[in-house]
Amino acid sequence: MRKAENRNKQREYLSERKKTAEELCWGRNPVISLLENSPERCSKVLLAKNVQPHVKAKIEELCRASKIVFSGVDSAALDRLCNGENHQGTAAYMLPVTLLDAEEFITSLPKAPAPCLVLLCDHLQDPHNLGAVIRSAEAAGANGVIIPKRGSCMPTGTVVKTSAGAALRLPVARTGNVAQTIKLFQDENFWTVGLAMEGSETLFKEDMPPRLLLVIGAEGDGLGHAAEKACDELRRIPMQGSTGSLNASVAASLALFEWTRSRK
Amino acid sequence: MRKAENRNKQREYLSERKKTAEELCWGRNPVISLLENSPERCSKVLLAKNVQPHVKAKIEELCRASKIVFSGVDSAALDRLCNGENHQGTAAYMLPVTLLDAEEFITSLPKAPAPCLVLLCDHLQDPHNLGAVIRSAEAAGANGVIIPKRGSCMPTGTVVKTSAGAALRLPVARTGNVAQTIKLFQDENFWTVGLAMEGSETLFKEDMPPRLLLVIGAEGDGLGHAAEKACDELRRIPMQGSTGSLNASVAASLALFEWTRSRK
Repeated sequence: MRKAENRNKQREYLSERKKTAEELCWGRNPVISLLENSPERCSKVLLAKNVQPHVKAKIEELCRASKIVFSGVDSAALDRLCNGENHQGTAAYMLPVTLLDAEEFITSLPKAPAPCLVLLCDHLQDPHNLGAVIRSAEAAGANGVIIPKRGSCMPTGTVVKTSAGAALRLPVARTGNVAQTIKLFQDENFWTVGLAMEGSETLFKEDMPPRLLLVIGAEGDGLGHAAEKACDELRRIPMQGSTGSLNASVAASLALFEWTRSRK
Repeated sequence: MRKAENRNKQREYLSERKKTAEELCWGRNPVISLLENSPERCSKVLLAKNVQPHVKAKIEELCRASKIVFSGVDSAALDRLCNGENHQGTAAYMLPVTLLDAEEFITSLPKAPAPCLVLLCDHLQDPHNLGAVIRSAEAAGANGVIIPKRGSCMPTGTVVKTSAGAALRLPVARTGNVAQTIKLFQDENFWTVGLAMEGSETLFKEDMPPRLLLVIGAEGDGLGHAAEKACDELRRIPMQGSTGSLNASVAASLALFEWTRSRK
Protein backbone atom coordinates (compact mmCIF):
# COMPACT_ATOMS: atom_id res chain seq x y z
CA MET A 1 0.00 0.00 0.00
CA ARG A 2 2.77 2.38 1.05
CA LYS A 3 4.69 1.33 -2.06
CA ALA A 4 1.74 2.10 -4.33
CA GLU A 5 1.35 5.49 -2.69
CA ASN A 6 5.02 6.24 -3.26
CA ARG A 7 4.69 5.20 -6.88
CA ASN A 8 1.74 7.53 -7.28
CA LYS A 9 3.63 10.36 -5.64
CA GLN A 10 6.58 9.73 -7.90
CA ARG A 11 4.29 9.79 -10.92
CA GLU A 12 2.71 13.06 -9.84
CA TYR A 13 6.15 14.41 -9.16
CA LEU A 14 7.39 13.50 -12.61
CA SER A 15 4.39 14.97 -14.34
CA GLU A 16 4.79 18.14 -12.24
CA ARG A 17 8.45 18.24 -13.27
CA LYS A 18 7.49 17.93 -16.92
CA LYS A 19 5.07 20.80 -16.57
CA THR A 20 7.55 23.10 -14.84
CA ALA A 21 10.82 22.11 -16.50
CA GLU A 22 10.75 25.09 -18.84
CA GLU A 23 10.25 27.38 -15.89
CA LEU A 24 13.19 26.12 -13.86
CA CYS A 25 16.60 27.77 -13.54
CA TRP A 26 19.41 25.98 -11.67
CA GLY A 27 22.99 26.56 -10.51
CA ARG A 28 24.53 29.06 -8.10
CA ASN A 29 25.14 31.93 -10.51
CA PRO A 30 21.93 31.68 -12.58
CA VAL A 31 19.80 31.67 -9.42
CA ILE A 32 21.69 34.62 -7.89
CA SER A 33 21.46 36.56 -11.18
CA LEU A 34 17.74 35.92 -11.39
CA LEU A 35 17.24 37.17 -7.83
CA GLU A 36 19.43 40.23 -8.39
CA ASN A 37 18.10 41.29 -11.80
CA SER A 38 14.54 40.01 -12.14
CA PRO A 39 13.20 39.10 -8.71
CA GLU A 40 9.67 39.82 -10.04
CA ARG A 41 10.06 36.81 -12.35
CA CYS A 42 10.95 34.40 -9.54
CA SER A 43 8.24 32.59 -7.59
CA LYS A 44 10.24 30.22 -5.36
CA VAL A 45 13.81 29.11 -4.62
CA LEU A 46 14.88 25.59 -3.63
CA LEU A 47 17.99 24.94 -1.52
CA ALA A 48 19.51 21.49 -1.02
CA LYS A 49 21.92 20.49 1.77
CA ASN A 50 24.92 20.43 -0.57
CA VAL A 51 24.75 24.14 -1.38
CA GLN A 52 27.79 26.07 -0.12
CA PRO A 53 27.05 27.98 3.14
CA HIS A 54 28.02 31.42 1.77
CA VAL A 55 25.87 30.84 -1.34
CA LYS A 56 22.97 29.76 0.85
CA ALA A 57 23.30 32.91 2.99
CA LYS A 58 23.47 35.16 -0.09
CA ILE A 59 20.41 33.54 -1.72
CA GLU A 60 18.37 33.69 1.49
CA GLU A 61 19.25 37.35 1.89
CA LEU A 62 18.18 38.15 -1.68
CA CYS A 63 14.95 36.19 -1.20
CA ARG A 64 14.12 38.07 1.99
CA ALA A 65 14.78 41.42 0.30
CA SER A 66 12.31 40.63 -2.48
CA LYS A 67 9.92 38.62 -0.30
CA ILE A 68 10.40 35.45 -2.31
CA VAL A 69 9.61 32.09 -0.71
CA PHE A 70 12.58 29.71 -0.28
CA SER A 71 12.59 26.19 1.08
CA GLY A 72 14.89 23.24 1.77
CA VAL A 73 14.74 20.28 -0.57
CA ASP A 74 16.19 16.78 -0.66
CA SER A 75 19.35 16.62 -2.80
CA ALA A 76 18.16 13.58 -4.74
CA ALA A 77 14.83 15.26 -5.45
CA LEU A 78 16.67 18.30 -6.82
CA ASP A 79 18.75 15.96 -9.04
CA ARG A 80 15.58 14.57 -10.54
CA LEU A 81 13.97 17.98 -10.86
CA CYS A 82 16.99 19.29 -12.77
CA ASN A 83 17.16 16.19 -14.93
CA GLY A 84 20.63 15.30 -13.67
CA GLU A 85 22.15 18.69 -14.51
CA ASN A 86 24.74 20.17 -12.17
CA HIS A 87 22.50 22.31 -9.95
CA GLN A 88 25.10 23.12 -7.27
CA GLY A 89 22.41 22.67 -4.63
CA THR A 90 19.95 25.34 -5.76
CA ALA A 91 17.23 25.98 -8.30
CA ALA A 92 14.55 28.64 -8.81
CA TYR A 93 11.14 28.66 -10.40
CA MET A 94 10.66 31.39 -12.98
CA LEU A 95 7.27 32.79 -13.87
CA PRO A 96 6.25 33.22 -17.51
CA VAL A 97 4.39 36.38 -16.46
CA THR A 98 5.98 39.67 -15.38
CA LEU A 99 4.32 40.67 -12.14
CA LEU A 100 3.80 44.36 -11.50
CA ASP A 101 3.96 46.01 -8.14
CA ALA A 102 0.41 46.76 -6.93
CA GLU A 103 1.16 50.39 -6.03
CA GLU A 104 2.72 51.13 -9.41
CA PHE A 105 -0.16 49.35 -11.11
CA ILE A 106 -2.73 51.53 -9.32
CA THR A 107 -1.02 54.74 -10.48
CA SER A 108 -1.23 53.46 -14.09
CA LEU A 109 -5.03 53.08 -14.00
CA PRO A 110 -7.42 55.62 -15.59
CA LYS A 111 -8.36 58.35 -13.11
CA ALA A 112 -11.90 59.02 -11.80
CA PRO A 113 -14.51 59.39 -13.16
CA ALA A 114 -13.41 56.98 -15.96
CA PRO A 115 -14.93 53.49 -15.50
CA CYS A 116 -12.42 50.90 -14.37
CA LEU A 117 -12.65 47.31 -13.13
CA VAL A 118 -9.91 45.55 -11.17
CA LEU A 119 -10.07 42.08 -9.61
CA LEU A 120 -8.25 41.30 -6.37
CA CYS A 121 -7.88 37.55 -5.71
CA ASP A 122 -7.45 37.04 -1.97
CA HIS A 123 -5.38 33.82 -1.88
CA LEU A 124 -6.70 31.56 -4.65
CA GLN A 125 -4.97 28.18 -4.35
CA ASP A 126 -5.74 26.35 -7.58
CA PRO A 127 -3.87 27.44 -10.73
CA HIS A 128 -6.81 26.31 -12.88
CA ASN A 129 -9.09 28.67 -10.98
CA LEU A 130 -6.62 31.55 -11.20
CA GLY A 131 -6.26 30.94 -14.95
CA ALA A 132 -10.03 30.78 -15.51
CA VAL A 133 -10.53 33.94 -13.44
CA ILE A 134 -7.91 35.88 -15.43
CA ARG A 135 -9.52 34.69 -18.68
CA SER A 136 -12.94 35.93 -17.51
CA ALA A 137 -11.46 39.20 -16.23
CA GLU A 138 -10.04 39.97 -19.67
CA ALA A 139 -13.33 39.07 -21.39
CA ALA A 140 -15.33 41.21 -18.93
CA GLY A 141 -13.12 44.19 -19.76
CA ALA A 142 -11.15 44.40 -16.50
CA ASN A 143 -8.02 46.56 -16.34
CA GLY A 144 -6.02 44.01 -14.37
CA VAL A 145 -5.79 41.39 -11.64
CA ILE A 146 -3.99 41.58 -8.29
CA ILE A 147 -2.76 38.59 -6.27
CA PRO A 148 -1.05 38.43 -2.86
CA LYS A 149 2.72 37.83 -2.65
CA ARG A 150 2.31 34.95 -0.21
CA GLY A 151 -0.17 32.13 0.27
CA SER A 152 -1.58 32.38 -3.24
CA CYS A 153 -0.87 30.34 -6.33
CA MET A 154 1.41 32.18 -8.72
CA PRO A 155 0.83 32.77 -12.47
CA THR A 156 2.77 29.71 -13.65
CA GLY A 157 2.63 28.06 -17.05
CA THR A 158 -0.51 26.17 -16.00
CA VAL A 159 -2.22 29.46 -15.19
CA VAL A 160 -1.19 30.96 -18.55
CA LYS A 161 -2.58 27.91 -20.35
CA THR A 162 -5.88 27.82 -18.42
CA SER A 163 -6.29 31.55 -19.01
CA ALA A 164 -6.09 30.94 -22.79
CA GLY A 165 -3.14 33.34 -22.80
CA ALA A 166 -4.99 36.17 -21.02
CA ALA A 167 -2.41 36.07 -18.20
CA LEU A 168 0.20 37.25 -20.72
CA ARG A 169 -1.96 40.16 -21.91
CA LEU A 170 -3.79 41.45 -18.85
CA PRO A 171 -1.65 43.27 -16.24
CA VAL A 172 -1.12 41.05 -13.18
CA ALA A 173 0.19 42.76 -10.04
CA ARG A 174 1.12 41.47 -6.60
CA THR A 175 0.67 42.97 -3.19
CA GLY A 176 2.21 42.26 0.18
CA ASN A 177 -0.85 43.53 2.04
CA VAL A 178 -4.36 42.98 0.72
CA ALA A 179 -6.12 45.33 3.17
CA GLN A 180 -3.69 48.17 2.42
CA THR A 181 -4.20 47.70 -1.32
CA ILE A 182 -7.98 47.91 -0.85
CA LYS A 183 -7.42 51.22 1.00
CA LEU A 184 -5.31 52.56 -1.89
CA PHE A 185 -8.10 51.79 -4.33
CA GLN A 186 -10.61 53.58 -2.11
CA ASP A 187 -8.32 56.63 -2.19
CA GLU A 188 -8.53 56.49 -6.00
CA ASN A 189 -12.34 56.67 -5.90
CA PHE A 190 -12.97 52.98 -6.38
CA TRP A 191 -15.97 51.31 -4.74
CA THR A 192 -14.74 48.03 -3.24
CA VAL A 193 -17.06 45.02 -3.21
CA GLY A 194 -16.13 41.72 -1.56
CA LEU A 195 -17.81 38.55 -2.74
CA ALA A 196 -18.77 36.63 0.42
CA MET A 197 -21.45 34.17 1.50
CA GLU A 198 -21.99 36.39 4.54
CA GLY A 199 -22.93 39.39 2.36
CA SER A 200 -26.25 40.86 3.51
CA GLU A 201 -27.14 41.95 -0.03
CA THR A 202 -27.13 39.84 -3.17
CA LEU A 203 -24.86 40.44 -6.13
CA PHE A 204 -27.93 41.58 -8.07
CA LYS A 205 -29.12 44.14 -5.50
CA GLU A 206 -28.31 47.10 -7.71
CA ASP A 207 -26.02 47.96 -10.62
CA MET A 208 -22.29 47.84 -10.00
CA PRO A 209 -20.59 51.28 -9.86
CA PRO A 210 -18.34 52.30 -12.81
CA ARG A 211 -15.14 52.25 -10.76
CA LEU A 212 -15.02 48.90 -9.04
CA LEU A 213 -12.46 46.86 -7.14
CA LEU A 214 -13.90 43.36 -6.87
CA VAL A 215 -12.39 41.20 -4.11
CA ILE A 216 -12.80 37.41 -4.19
CA GLY A 217 -11.62 34.89 -1.60
CA ALA A 218 -9.90 31.52 -1.58
CA GLU A 219 -11.65 28.30 -2.57
CA GLY A 220 -13.48 26.98 0.47
CA ASP A 221 -12.26 29.56 2.96
CA GLY A 222 -13.65 32.63 1.20
CA LEU A 223 -12.46 36.16 1.97
CA GLY A 224 -9.84 36.69 4.65
CA HIS A 225 -10.91 38.67 7.72
CA ALA A 226 -8.75 41.72 6.89
CA ALA A 227 -10.03 41.91 3.32
CA GLU A 228 -13.63 41.48 4.44
CA LYS A 229 -13.29 44.31 6.94
CA ALA A 230 -11.62 46.65 4.44
CA CYS A 231 -14.29 46.33 1.72
CA ASP A 232 -17.00 49.01 1.36
CA GLU A 233 -19.63 46.36 0.84
CA LEU A 234 -20.08 42.58 0.80
CA ARG A 235 -22.37 40.90 -1.68
CA ARG A 236 -23.36 37.26 -1.95
CA ILE A 237 -24.52 35.23 -4.95
CA PRO A 238 -28.10 34.08 -4.29
CA MET A 239 -28.12 30.29 -4.41
CA GLN A 240 -30.68 27.52 -4.39
CA GLY A 241 -30.32 23.79 -3.80
CA SER A 242 -28.04 22.12 -1.32
CA THR A 243 -24.61 22.56 -2.92
CA GLY A 244 -24.46 25.99 -1.33
CA SER A 245 -21.41 27.13 -3.23
CA LEU A 246 -20.13 27.65 -6.75
CA ASN A 247 -16.80 26.91 -8.34
CA ALA A 248 -14.50 29.86 -7.44
CA SER A 249 -13.93 30.87 -11.06
CA VAL A 250 -17.67 30.72 -11.82
CA ALA A 251 -18.49 32.92 -8.80
CA ALA A 252 -15.81 35.46 -9.77
CA SER A 253 -17.02 35.50 -13.38
CA LEU A 254 -20.62 36.20 -12.32
CA ALA A 255 -19.45 39.24 -10.34
CA LEU A 256 -17.09 40.44 -13.10
CA PHE A 257 -19.83 40.29 -15.72
CA GLU A 258 -22.32 41.93 -13.38
CA TRP A 259 -20.06 45.00 -13.74
CA THR A 260 -20.09 44.53 -17.54
CA ARG A 261 -23.89 44.22 -17.55
CA SER A 262 -24.23 47.33 -15.37
CA ARG A 263 -22.29 49.35 -17.98
CA LYS A 264 -24.91 48.72 -20.71
CA MET B 1 9.56 8.83 -28.50
CA ARG B 2 6.90 6.29 -29.44
CA LYS B 3 7.80 4.34 -26.30
CA ALA B 4 7.37 7.40 -24.09
CA GLU B 5 4.00 8.09 -25.69
CA ASN B 6 2.90 4.55 -25.01
CA ARG B 7 4.01 4.84 -21.42
CA ASN B 8 2.00 8.05 -21.06
CA LYS B 9 -1.02 6.41 -22.64
CA GLN B 10 -0.66 3.46 -20.32
CA ARG B 11 -0.43 5.80 -17.34
CA GLU B 12 -3.55 7.71 -18.45
CA TYR B 13 -5.26 4.41 -19.04
CA LEU B 14 -4.44 3.17 -15.55
CA SER B 15 -5.59 6.36 -13.91
CA GLU B 16 -8.78 6.26 -15.98
CA ARG B 17 -9.28 2.66 -14.83
CA LYS B 18 -8.85 3.70 -11.23
CA LYS B 19 -11.45 6.42 -11.66
CA THR B 20 -14.02 4.18 -13.30
CA ALA B 21 -13.43 0.84 -11.57
CA GLU B 22 -16.44 1.30 -9.29
CA GLU B 23 -18.62 1.96 -12.28
CA LEU B 24 -17.70 -1.17 -14.19
CA CYS B 25 -19.78 -4.34 -14.48
CA TRP B 26 -18.30 -7.42 -16.18
CA GLY B 27 -19.29 -10.91 -17.26
CA ARG B 28 -21.87 -12.21 -19.72
CA ASN B 29 -24.89 -12.38 -17.40
CA PRO B 30 -24.30 -9.17 -15.43
CA VAL B 31 -23.91 -7.14 -18.64
CA ILE B 32 -27.03 -8.68 -20.21
CA SER B 33 -29.02 -8.12 -17.00
CA LEU B 34 -27.92 -4.50 -16.87
CA LEU B 35 -28.99 -3.96 -20.50
CA GLU B 36 -32.31 -5.73 -19.99
CA ASN B 37 -33.28 -4.20 -16.66
CA SER B 38 -31.59 -0.81 -16.37
CA PRO B 39 -30.41 0.31 -19.80
CA GLU B 40 -30.71 3.93 -18.60
CA ARG B 41 -27.84 3.24 -16.16
CA CYS B 42 -25.47 1.97 -18.87
CA SER B 43 -23.28 4.38 -20.82
CA LYS B 44 -21.11 2.02 -22.90
CA VAL B 45 -20.44 -1.67 -23.49
CA LEU B 46 -17.07 -3.22 -24.32
CA LEU B 47 -16.74 -6.45 -26.31
CA ALA B 48 -13.49 -8.43 -26.64
CA LYS B 49 -12.71 -11.05 -29.31
CA ASN B 50 -13.12 -13.93 -26.88
CA VAL B 51 -16.81 -13.26 -26.22
CA GLN B 52 -19.05 -16.07 -27.49
CA PRO B 53 -20.74 -15.21 -30.83
CA HIS B 54 -24.32 -15.68 -29.56
CA VAL B 55 -23.57 -13.54 -26.48
CA LYS B 56 -22.06 -10.87 -28.72
CA ALA B 57 -25.16 -10.87 -30.96
CA LYS B 58 -27.50 -10.64 -27.98
CA ILE B 59 -25.56 -7.77 -26.38
CA GLU B 60 -25.34 -5.83 -29.63
CA GLU B 61 -29.07 -6.25 -30.17
CA LEU B 62 -29.85 -4.97 -26.65
CA CYS B 63 -27.47 -2.03 -27.14
CA ARG B 64 -29.13 -1.09 -30.44
CA ALA B 65 -32.59 -1.28 -28.84
CA SER B 66 -31.59 1.17 -26.10
CA LYS B 67 -29.23 3.24 -28.28
CA ILE B 68 -26.21 2.42 -26.15
CA VAL B 69 -22.73 2.71 -27.64
CA PHE B 70 -20.72 -0.54 -27.89
CA SER B 71 -17.20 -1.02 -29.11
CA GLY B 72 -14.55 -3.70 -29.61
CA VAL B 73 -11.66 -3.86 -27.19
CA ASP B 74 -8.40 -5.74 -26.92
CA SER B 75 -8.70 -8.83 -24.68
CA ALA B 76 -5.61 -7.95 -22.65
CA ALA B 77 -6.89 -4.41 -22.11
CA LEU B 78 -10.16 -5.82 -20.80
CA ASP B 79 -8.18 -8.09 -18.43
CA ARG B 80 -6.46 -5.06 -16.96
CA LEU B 81 -9.64 -3.03 -16.85
CA CYS B 82 -11.39 -5.79 -14.90
CA ASN B 83 -8.42 -6.29 -12.62
CA GLY B 84 -7.91 -9.88 -13.72
CA GLU B 85 -11.51 -10.94 -12.97
CA ASN B 86 -13.23 -13.39 -15.31
CA HIS B 87 -15.01 -10.98 -17.64
CA GLN B 88 -16.04 -13.54 -20.30
CA GLY B 89 -15.17 -11.00 -22.97
CA THR B 90 -17.52 -8.22 -22.03
CA ALA B 91 -17.91 -5.34 -19.61
CA ALA B 92 -20.22 -2.35 -19.27
CA TYR B 93 -19.85 1.09 -17.79
CA MET B 94 -22.57 1.96 -15.31
CA LEU B 95 -23.56 5.56 -14.56
CA PRO B 96 -23.95 6.69 -10.96
CA VAL B 97 -26.83 8.90 -12.11
CA THR B 98 -30.25 7.69 -13.23
CA LEU B 99 -31.00 9.39 -16.52
CA LEU B 100 -34.60 10.34 -17.23
CA ASP B 101 -36.20 10.34 -20.63
CA ALA B 102 -36.49 13.92 -21.92
CA GLU B 103 -40.18 13.60 -22.88
CA GLU B 104 -41.16 12.21 -19.47
CA PHE B 105 -39.06 14.88 -17.79
CA ILE B 106 -40.88 17.65 -19.67
CA THR B 107 -44.28 16.38 -18.53
CA SER B 108 -43.04 16.51 -14.91
CA LEU B 109 -42.20 20.24 -15.07
CA PRO B 110 -44.43 22.95 -13.56
CA LYS B 111 -47.00 24.17 -16.11
CA ALA B 112 -47.23 27.71 -17.48
CA PRO B 113 -47.29 30.39 -16.19
CA ALA B 114 -45.07 29.07 -13.35
CA PRO B 115 -41.41 30.13 -13.74
CA CYS B 116 -39.12 27.30 -14.79
CA LEU B 117 -35.53 27.07 -15.97
CA VAL B 118 -34.07 24.09 -17.85
CA LEU B 119 -30.59 23.80 -19.35
CA LEU B 120 -29.98 21.83 -22.53
CA CYS B 121 -26.30 20.99 -23.12
CA ASP B 122 -25.80 20.43 -26.84
CA HIS B 123 -22.85 17.98 -26.83
CA LEU B 124 -20.49 19.08 -24.05
CA GLN B 125 -17.35 16.93 -24.26
CA ASP B 126 -15.49 17.53 -21.01
CA PRO B 127 -16.84 15.88 -17.83
CA HIS B 128 -15.40 18.71 -15.73
CA ASN B 129 -17.44 21.22 -17.72
CA LEU B 130 -20.60 19.11 -17.50
CA GLY B 131 -20.11 18.76 -13.74
CA ALA B 132 -19.49 22.49 -13.23
CA VAL B 133 -22.53 23.33 -15.37
CA ILE B 134 -24.81 21.01 -13.37
CA ARG B 135 -23.48 22.52 -10.13
CA SER B 136 -24.26 26.04 -11.38
CA ALA B 137 -27.68 24.96 -12.70
CA GLU B 138 -28.67 23.70 -9.25
CA ALA B 139 -27.41 26.89 -7.56
CA ALA B 140 -29.23 29.09 -10.10
CA GLY B 141 -32.49 27.28 -9.28
CA ALA B 142 -32.88 25.30 -12.51
CA ASN B 143 -35.40 22.43 -12.65
CA GLY B 144 -33.08 20.10 -14.54
CA VAL B 145 -30.47 19.50 -17.22
CA ILE B 146 -30.82 17.68 -20.55
CA ILE B 147 -27.99 16.04 -22.48
CA PRO B 148 -27.98 14.26 -25.86
CA LYS B 149 -27.84 10.45 -25.99
CA ARG B 150 -24.88 10.44 -28.38
CA GLY B 151 -21.79 12.56 -28.85
CA SER B 152 -21.91 14.07 -25.37
CA CYS B 153 -20.02 13.16 -22.24
CA MET B 154 -22.17 11.18 -19.82
CA PRO B 155 -22.73 11.89 -16.09
CA THR B 156 -19.94 9.63 -14.82
CA GLY B 157 -18.34 9.64 -11.39
CA THR B 158 -16.06 12.49 -12.47
CA VAL B 159 -19.11 14.57 -13.38
CA VAL B 160 -20.78 13.80 -10.03
CA LYS B 161 -17.62 14.85 -8.21
CA THR B 162 -17.09 18.08 -10.20
CA SER B 163 -20.77 18.94 -9.69
CA ALA B 164 -20.23 18.75 -5.90
CA GLY B 165 -22.98 16.11 -5.87
CA ALA B 166 -25.53 18.26 -7.72
CA ALA B 167 -25.70 15.63 -10.51
CA LEU B 168 -27.23 13.23 -7.96
CA ARG B 169 -29.88 15.75 -6.87
CA LEU B 170 -30.89 17.67 -9.98
CA PRO B 171 -32.91 15.71 -12.58
CA VAL B 172 -30.73 14.86 -15.59
CA ALA B 173 -32.54 13.70 -18.73
CA ARG B 174 -31.30 12.56 -22.13
CA THR B 175 -32.68 13.12 -25.57
CA GLY B 176 -32.14 11.41 -28.90
CA ASN B 177 -32.98 14.58 -30.84
CA VAL B 178 -32.04 18.01 -29.59
CA ALA B 179 -34.10 20.02 -32.10
CA GLN B 180 -37.22 17.96 -31.37
CA THR B 181 -36.77 18.49 -27.63
CA ILE B 182 -36.51 22.26 -28.16
CA LYS B 183 -39.82 22.07 -30.07
CA LEU B 184 -41.47 20.18 -27.17
CA PHE B 185 -40.39 22.92 -24.75
CA GLN B 186 -41.83 25.58 -27.04
CA ASP B 187 -45.14 23.68 -26.98
CA GLU B 188 -45.03 23.95 -23.18
CA ASN B 189 -44.73 27.73 -23.35
CA PHE B 190 -41.00 27.93 -22.83
CA TRP B 191 -38.96 30.66 -24.49
CA THR B 192 -35.81 29.02 -25.91
CA VAL B 193 -32.56 30.97 -25.92
CA GLY B 194 -29.39 29.61 -27.49
CA LEU B 195 -26.03 30.92 -26.29
CA ALA B 196 -23.96 31.57 -29.42
CA MET B 197 -21.17 33.89 -30.48
CA GLU B 198 -23.28 34.64 -33.59
CA GLY B 199 -26.15 35.99 -31.49
CA SER B 200 -27.20 39.43 -32.72
CA GLU B 201 -28.23 40.53 -29.23
CA THR B 202 -26.18 40.32 -26.04
CA LEU B 203 -27.08 38.19 -23.05
CA PHE B 204 -27.87 41.41 -21.18
CA LYS B 205 -30.20 42.87 -23.82
CA GLU B 206 -33.29 42.47 -21.66
CA ASP B 207 -34.47 40.36 -18.74
CA MET B 208 -34.82 36.63 -19.27
CA PRO B 209 -38.44 35.35 -19.44
CA PRO B 210 -39.76 33.31 -16.48
CA ARG B 211 -40.08 30.08 -18.48
CA LEU B 212 -36.74 29.52 -20.14
CA LEU B 213 -35.00 26.69 -21.95
CA LEU B 214 -31.35 27.70 -22.18
CA VAL B 215 -29.35 25.89 -24.88
CA ILE B 216 -25.55 25.83 -24.74
CA GLY B 217 -23.15 24.28 -27.24
CA ALA B 218 -20.00 22.18 -27.18
CA GLU B 219 -16.63 23.54 -26.14
CA GLY B 220 -15.02 25.15 -29.19
CA ASP B 221 -17.70 24.20 -31.72
CA GLY B 222 -20.61 25.98 -30.04
CA LEU B 223 -24.24 25.20 -30.85
CA GLY B 224 -25.05 22.62 -33.50
CA HIS B 225 -26.85 23.85 -36.62
CA ALA B 226 -30.15 22.11 -35.80
CA ALA B 227 -30.23 23.47 -32.25
CA GLU B 228 -29.34 26.97 -33.44
CA LYS B 229 -32.16 26.92 -35.99
CA ALA B 230 -34.72 25.61 -33.50
CA CYS B 231 -34.12 28.28 -30.82
CA ASP B 232 -36.45 31.29 -30.55
CA GLU B 233 -33.50 33.60 -30.05
CA LEU B 234 -29.71 33.58 -29.95
CA ARG B 235 -27.79 35.70 -27.47
CA ARG B 236 -24.05 36.24 -27.15
CA ILE B 237 -21.94 37.19 -24.15
CA PRO B 238 -20.33 40.58 -24.83
CA MET B 239 -16.56 40.13 -24.63
CA GLN B 240 -13.50 42.34 -24.64
CA GLY B 241 -9.82 41.52 -25.12
CA SER B 242 -8.39 39.00 -27.54
CA THR B 243 -9.28 35.68 -25.89
CA GLY B 244 -12.66 35.93 -27.57
CA SER B 245 -14.23 33.09 -25.62
CA LEU B 246 -14.97 31.95 -22.10
CA ASN B 247 -14.69 28.57 -20.44
CA ALA B 248 -17.88 26.66 -21.37
CA SER B 249 -19.02 26.28 -17.75
CA VAL B 250 -18.41 29.98 -17.05
CA ALA B 251 -20.45 31.01 -20.12
CA ALA B 252 -23.32 28.68 -19.16
CA SER B 253 -23.27 29.96 -15.57
CA LEU B 254 -23.51 33.59 -16.71
CA ALA B 255 -26.63 32.77 -18.73
CA LEU B 256 -28.17 30.62 -15.94
CA PHE B 257 -27.72 33.37 -13.35
CA GLU B 258 -29.01 36.01 -15.78
CA TRP B 259 -32.34 34.15 -15.44
CA THR B 260 -31.94 34.19 -11.63
CA ARG B 261 -31.17 37.91 -11.68
CA SER B 262 -34.17 38.59 -13.91
CA ARG B 263 -36.49 36.98 -11.32
CA LYS B 264 -35.58 39.52 -8.60
